[in-house]
Formats: sequence, C-alpha cells, structure tokens
Amino acid sequence: MIPSLRWLDDEGAVEMIDQTKLPYELTFLKITTHEAMARAIKVMNVRGAPAIGVAAAMGMTLAAQQATANKASSREVLFAYLENAKKTIDSTRPTAVNLFWATSRMMGKAKATQGDTKEVVAALVAEAKVMWQEDIDRNKAIGMHGAALLKDGDTVLTHCNAGSLATVQYGTALAPIRAAIEQGKKIQVIADETRPRLQGATLTAYELYYDKIPVKVISDNSSGLLMRLGKIQKIIVGADRIVRDAVFNKIGTFMVALAAKYHNIPMYVAAPSSTLSLSESGKDVTIEQRDDSEVTTVLGKVKIVPDGVEAINYAFDETPIDLISGIITEDGVFTPKELLAKYQSRTK
Amino acid sequence: MIPSLRWLDDEGAVEMIDQTKLPYELTFLKITTHEAMARAIKVMNVRGAPAIGVAAAMGMTLAAQQATANKASSREVLFAYLENAKKTIDSTRPTAVNLFWATSRMMGKAKATQGDTKEVVAALVAEAKVMWQEDIDRNKAIGMHGAALLKDGDTVLTHCNAGSLATVQYGTALAPIRAAIEQGKKIQVIADETRPRLQGATLTAYELYYDKIPVKVISDNSSGLLMRLGKIQKIIVGADRIVRDAVFNKIGTFMVALAAKYHNIPMYVAAPSSTLSLSESGKDVTIEQRDDSEVTTVLGKVKIVPDGVEAINYAFDETPIDLISGIITEDGVFTPKELLAKYQSRTK
Repeated sequence: MIPSLRWLDDEGAVEMIDQTKLPYELTFLKITTHEAMARAIKVMNVRGAPAIGVAAAMGMTLAAQQATANKASSREVLFAYLENAKKTIDSTRPTAVNLFWATSRMMGKAKATQGDTKEVVAALVAEAKVMWQEDIDRNKAIGMHGAALLKDGDTVLTHCNAGSLATVQYGTALAPIRAAIEQGKKIQVIADETRPRLQGATLTAYELYYDKIPVKVISDNSSGLLMRLGKIQKIIVGADRIVRDAVFNKIGTFMVALAAKYHNIPMYVAAPSSTLSLSESGKDVTIEQRDDSEVTTVLGKVKIVPDGVEAINYAFDETPIDLISGIITEDGVFTPKELLAKYQSRTK
Repeated sequence: MIPSLRWLDDEGAVEMIDQTKLPYELTFLKITTHEAMARAIKVMNVRGAPAIGVAAAMGMTLAAQQATANKASSREVLFAYLENAKKTIDSTRPTAVNLFWATSRMMGKAKATQGDTKEVVAALVAEAKVMWQEDIDRNKAIGMHGAALLKDGDTVLTHCNAGSLATVQYGTALAPIRAAIEQGKKIQVIADETRPRLQGATLTAYELYYDKIPVKVISDNSSGLLMRLGKIQKIIVGADRIVRDAVFNKIGTFMVALAAKYHNIPMYVAAPSSTLSLSESGKDVTIEQRDDSEVTTVLGKVKIVPDGVEAINYAFDETPIDLISGIITEDGVFTPKELLAKYQSRTK
C-alpha cells in the first residue's frame, strides 16, 4: 500500500489518501495549510492514531511555512503563530493522544532550533519527515517480531483497520502479516467488517486487496463459528490504549478475544509502545460513546432501524489482558506479565 | 403485532407480510401457488423457523389445490404432485428443520385422509389452519413458562428476530418478554442488529416498537461490553434446530453465548419442541452458506467492500448446549440434561 500521507518537498505540501472515499475510489488530497490539515483530521480523510500523529506534525510544519510567508520576521511571532496552529490541530479529535504528543514534539523542536525563522521552518520540515520515517520503522519492527508468530498456511483474523491506512505505511496489526508474506509464508486474512463504521470492510479489505494479500470479509458475529470450524489459526488486532489489566480497542475486540480463549487460538495485540499507559487500569478509562446514527444507518447511506428507535453506540471496548496471548510492540513480543516487567518504569 | 401470514378462506390463498420491506413499509403479499411459496421462503419474504413451517404447510395446501385444478383425478396423481411440491419447498432453506417437519406432516395427513382428492384438499386446508393456530398457542405457552424467568426491571438481550414476525404471531424468544410485560413487569430489550440481513435492526426493533415495548439496537459486536458494564440481565434467543449437544441459530448466537458464559449471565433458548432434533448431534448438521452479496453489501443497497473482495457468509452457527442455561419450550423450561430426559423418546 502506498503511504497514507507524505510530504512533497517540491511543493512544501502534504499529499494524503482521502480515506472517506475508500473503498470506492483512491483519490488524494493536497494539503497546504494547517487549517486544511485540521479539517482533514476532523472529517477523517486521515484516521488511525499513528497516521493522525504524523498528519498533525506536518500540519505544524505547514503552519510554520504560512507564518514565514506572512512575513513573520521574528522567532516570537513565529512561535505565537505555531501555538495558535497547535490549538487548532489539537481540537480536532480530542481523544487522540498521538495528536497532542505530535504537536508538542514539533513545538519543542521549533523552540530548540537555533537561528532565524527560515532555519526553524527547515527544522520542522525535517522533523516531520523524521516522524514519518520513524512510524514506518516502528511498524516494520512490529512486523518482524510478529511474523515469527505466524506459520506458513495460517489464516489470520483481524478486526477494524490497524493497517497501512491507520499509520504512515505498513500498519501495526497488519505488519506481522505483511512481514510473514515477505518472508515467503502463505498467509490468508479474514477481516471483520467492523460495524458500525465498517473500517474492516472498507479499509482493511481495500489495502490488502491492493497489495494482493488474500482477504475475505465476514460479519463481526461470524468469527466464533469460523474458529469452531478450524478456519482461523491466529488473531491480530491493534489497540487504542493498553493499560495494565486491559486492552482498549475497537468495539468487538472483546467478543473476538472471548471466542479465541474458548477455542485456545492465540490472540495478539500489535501496537507501538506509545499506546501503552501502564499506570492506568481499565476502570480509569471512560469509553467514548458516539452518535446513534452510526448504528441506525450504514455509513449514513441506509437507515436500518425504524424511525423512533434508538441505539447504543460504544466506540471501543475493554478486553481483560489475560485473554491476550501476546502484545507485539516495536521491541518484541510480550505476554501481559512480561509487558509490565519490560515497560513498568514508564509512566504516562 | 399482526400475524406474519394467514390463510384466506375466500380465496384459497395465503396473505403474508413482506418482511423484506420492513422496517420501511408494512406491505402484504398474496401467495397462490406452492412455487410462489417456495420462492417467498427462499428470498425471505417470510422467515423464522416457526413461520417457515406454517408457510411450508400452506405451500403444500396450495400444491394440492393446484394439482386438483390440473385435474389430478386420482389420489396417486395428487400424492405424486405433492411429493414433488414437497421437494421444491424442502430445498429452499436447508437448515430449517421445521420445513421438513411441516411438509412431512402435510404429506402424512394427505395419505391418511380417506376419500377422493377433493376431500384430501379440504383436509390439507384444515390441517394448515390447525398448524397456524397451534403455533400461536405454543408461543403463548412458551411466553408463560419463560416470563417466570424474567424479573421486573430486567434488560433482555435478543439476537436476530425470533419474534412475532418469525412465527405466526407472538414469537418464541420474544414471547417471554411479551408475557412478562402483560404480567406488569417492566422489561427493556436490547436487539442485536444481526448482520448480515439485519433482522434485529429491521424486524425485532420494528415489532417491539410497534407494540410499544422499549427497545434499543446495538451492533452485534457490542453485547460483550454491555454485559461487562452490567447492562444486560438476561438473554433469550430462538433456535433453528436444537440437537442433543448444540443449538443452531442465527450467526452470532454462539459469540453471544460465550460472552454470557464469561459473565455468568443466564442465556435461554426459546423454541417450540418441533425445533428439537435430539437424535442428531452437531456434527450431523450442515450449516447453510448464503450469497456473498449479503455481506459485501448492506441489504443490497450499499456496497461496503472493494470490488473483487469476497466474503464468507454462514447463515447460522452452532452453540454447544452446555453454554445454554435453559431451553424454553411450550412444555416448560429445561436444562440441557432435562431436555434430553423429557424428549428422549422422540426421534426425528
């Protein structure tokens, strides 16, 4: 899969896949201002925590370019402009931790850079490109560690989209699958459609098909039977947040984990270590509830319940960590217990 | 809710709700031939095991009328025509045991009836109407037995539609809820939307809302979290076939049962005893696979996967019977063990 977004050196602009148009057409947006980037994040032209982080960083770079184009002659004027841009970008997806992390890193880089405004802009262009490359490198490391868990001939179930499209490129949950295939293993993927927003059907299926990786789509309620029938050997999902006793990920992950446990099928969570928040436990986390209309319609296109009937729409669920066989990060594969030992010194 | 189908004496025809049009409009079909009835069953204008049984019986009556209209002068010619019609009807939905039960009963009735072909036709009209009334009576009995399991204030999860629309009237899984409410208990319902065909969102929500019973719809992958959050007290589902070690019901039932077991929430299967096939075990049952397009689109209206990507679409799944707390039939509530003891003498 081509990168979900990239910096265009010649133009000083960002090109990104418009994911709201997938799987129907592969179209690109060109983003030249931080306001346009904020809007792209908000309306989910780009989505997925790692991709959002890099998009936000590039948004800060665009802001620096805008400020100097507007003749910001002093560092102070430039920094004030950047602080303002940071607020605009940070307000787009209030729950996305990567967003604040990325804009803060860029702000820090700006202030730490010696020289005039031109040099600060150059440093921010470079930093955004470093973050872009870091994301790919991290995903490749996740892929390398995770690929060792997959056997030639395995069929792997995944839920939602933690693939190339959720990152700069290569993906997190899909990285081990990509790496295993690069190693010459024959791997097939089953993608949960992932109601209500159908990221599995629309995005995971799209990027795997694009890369000629065999994929079939199922309704979310089917994986239990497929496990029972012996048609699934491994499960890999991503994570939005991993706390010390639970994994928070797209709604439905928990029911997949219960079925996996019952059938003794290994279930892995693949996520960069930035997803870890081990000072928290599950009860500290409030699960986002989203608008009814995501459930009462399909993609806003077809109403599926009678007028007057309401829905309950939790965006994420909580999977007790003891249901997880292993957590794959850029540093290796860890049991829940090993994960705590490895990262226990970190606080977030 | 009005009956899902009924025999029109004046016209010698069947009138049925076209369930493929719900929840958008309440429209009716008139069925005058067994071929049309087979088609209505196949394309799911009528669905739900008990309703299918009565529809199949009425289809046999229509076949008898057709045969005599075609001047089947002898019983032998009539029976041959009926055997043929039975094959046509039986082939529509391979997992539905009620179908074979109903057509066999009608075949037996035909042969056991004394007299000429006209008398056989009259007997089949009467028999279909008896089966229609028996279904309602049985559902009311299921409701009475099941209502005793529900407490005032309970929220009950159900999957698919085993309601009035799945039967002649009143429902199986929804019967205990209806009866408990008639007894003055306050009961709320959570309905799984039930991909791919969304019978929960379109039918269960429709009939409960129609009857002013509080209902909310969720995506199928949400019930695990809701159980974890303490928002579900009981689960009642229907069944397409109950064998000695497993329950076959709409895809997704198994994953609900696994979540129920994990949370120690009682999960009941409500079904008429005609659904029992206790001489069989799970491995004897072939699970119907339906067309990809049910999964790759939503109700045929919106394509949700990229062109070229296939789906896996099992219509039913198999729930090991030890995950079920009780089976509610017209005769009472039984643990799996009690069920075998009660009905073991029956062979099918």
